[in-house]
Amino acid sequence: MKRAVISVSGGMDSTGLLLNLLREGYKVDAISFNYGQKHSVEIERLNKNIDYLKSNGYNVELKNLDLSQVMKSFNSSLIDESLDVPSGVYDSENMKSTVVPNRNAIFSAITYGYALSISTKENCNVDIALGVHSGDHTIYPDCREDFFTALNYAFKIGNWGSEKVGYYLPYMKENKFFILKDAKISCEKLNLDFTTVFKNTNTCYNPSKDGKSCGKCGSCNERLEAFLFLGEKDPVEYLGV
Amino acid sequence: MKRAVISVSGGMDSTGLLLNLLREGYKVDAISFNYGQKHSVEIERLNKNIDYLKSNGYNVELKNLDLSQVMKSFNSSLIDESLDVPSGVYDSENMKSTVVPNRNAIFSAITYGYALSISTKENCNVDIALGVHSGDHTIYPDCREDFFTALNYAFKIGNWGSEKVGYYLPYMKENKFFILKDAKISCEKLNLDFTTVFKNTNTCYNPSKDGKSCGKCGSCNERLEAFLFLGEKDPVEYLGV
Repeated sequence: MKRAVISVSGGMDSTGLLLNLLREGYKVDAISFNYGQKHSVEIERLNKNIDYLKSNGYNVELKNLDLSQVMKSFNSSLIDESLDVPSGVYDSENMKSTVVPNRNAIFSAITYGYALSISTKENCNVDIALGVHSGDHTIYPDCREDFFTALNYAFKIGNWGSEKVGYYLPYMKENKFFILKDAKISCEKLNLDFTTVFKNTNTCYNPSKDGKSCGKCGSCNERLEAFLFLGEKDPVEYLGV
Repeated sequence: MKRAVISVSGGMDSTGLLLNLLREGYKVDAISFNYGQKHSVEIERLNKNIDYLKSNGYNVELKNLDLSQVMKSFNSSLIDESLDVPSGVYDSENMKSTVVPNRNAIFSAITYGYALSISTKENCNVDIALGVHSGDHTIYPDCREDFFTALNYAFKIGNWGSEKVGYYLPYMKENKFFILKDAKISCEKLNLDFTTVFKNTNTCYNPSKDGKSCGKCGSCNERLEAFLFLGEKDPVEYLGV
């Protein structure tokens, strides 16, 4: 059976990718990271989704990895309680405060070590699945293709057995709308309920204490647009709606 | 004042480098990692050394970062209780089980994010100090210069503000003996006691429960050789001596 390791956030992209992996017949090990993000509701929903998948016969092994102590002093409005998460369009200049220094490098390095450990212990090939896509790039340099290419090259020359670790990047040239459409197709093929799955996600950077999305941050704007294009109602709750 | 971030293990190389930074007039932020290593005595001794430095007026800010939950399933005899740490020469084939998948990439990625956060919050340049040296390379590919060059290139293109983060690598072309000799010079200039400082270090991969070094693992062999070349007695205790 094909093996994959995926880093899941509980957001749209990684949820779509997780469904895609199951549809492609992968045995999936998933990792989530608590890095002290204010929007930790995403992890609660992720756990619900994994339970939902399990109750439908899809056994995804999920490890919640705790980096909150390690990254609590990192400079970002997503972590620091004294900084407000900005509203606006996703790629506007003022959203730069939502960047977490080197976050994707840290997550990738851990995911790679994890994949390599599985590959060595079980003597198998492992694909690392990443939800990297064509958006995200204006203010998030650690979401760009050239960054992942450079990082992977470093990991490759820095490890024994790296020839057994590959990448699965089905969304590299696609956008958020494509990912959501792909998720809908996956749900149909896997006999899962699209609405239930996406109710168990969070995209908002600035949710209220009871988990409602703000509808104003760049991340919410992007999500709402994708649902609009797909002609589906977004099942998560928004403030003031 | 020049700023530096250093990842310290409590071993010889990073201890030498820490002293070198103080001698060079850096204000130092140090990070240590608990990744579930069996030889965690190195962290206890590191904390003692930081206290010793403080009592002599050198204020090193140390953060102990806990990755033990994150890395506990990683495949390495340094972590896995069911695997024995091998004896032998440092670079022999059987020492490969002591490699921890992608460890230096993980530590480097976190250190970089940490340095970048300081640089942004305090609007200053920060040097990352690494104890990379000319040894270590036969079986540890993530200690090689080309690996760090590739990794740094990825971090550089993956982050805003990376032009303010530099590297300080004084041992790149040197060996363990040079590092120990350099540490002795630093101690003299900083008015610190060389023996006390190195009593508060651990190099052994396989120390006994009461913290004695085995004297047989590759790491011990290298250390003993460096002390022999320097003509100094190694102040740590060895089993059976």
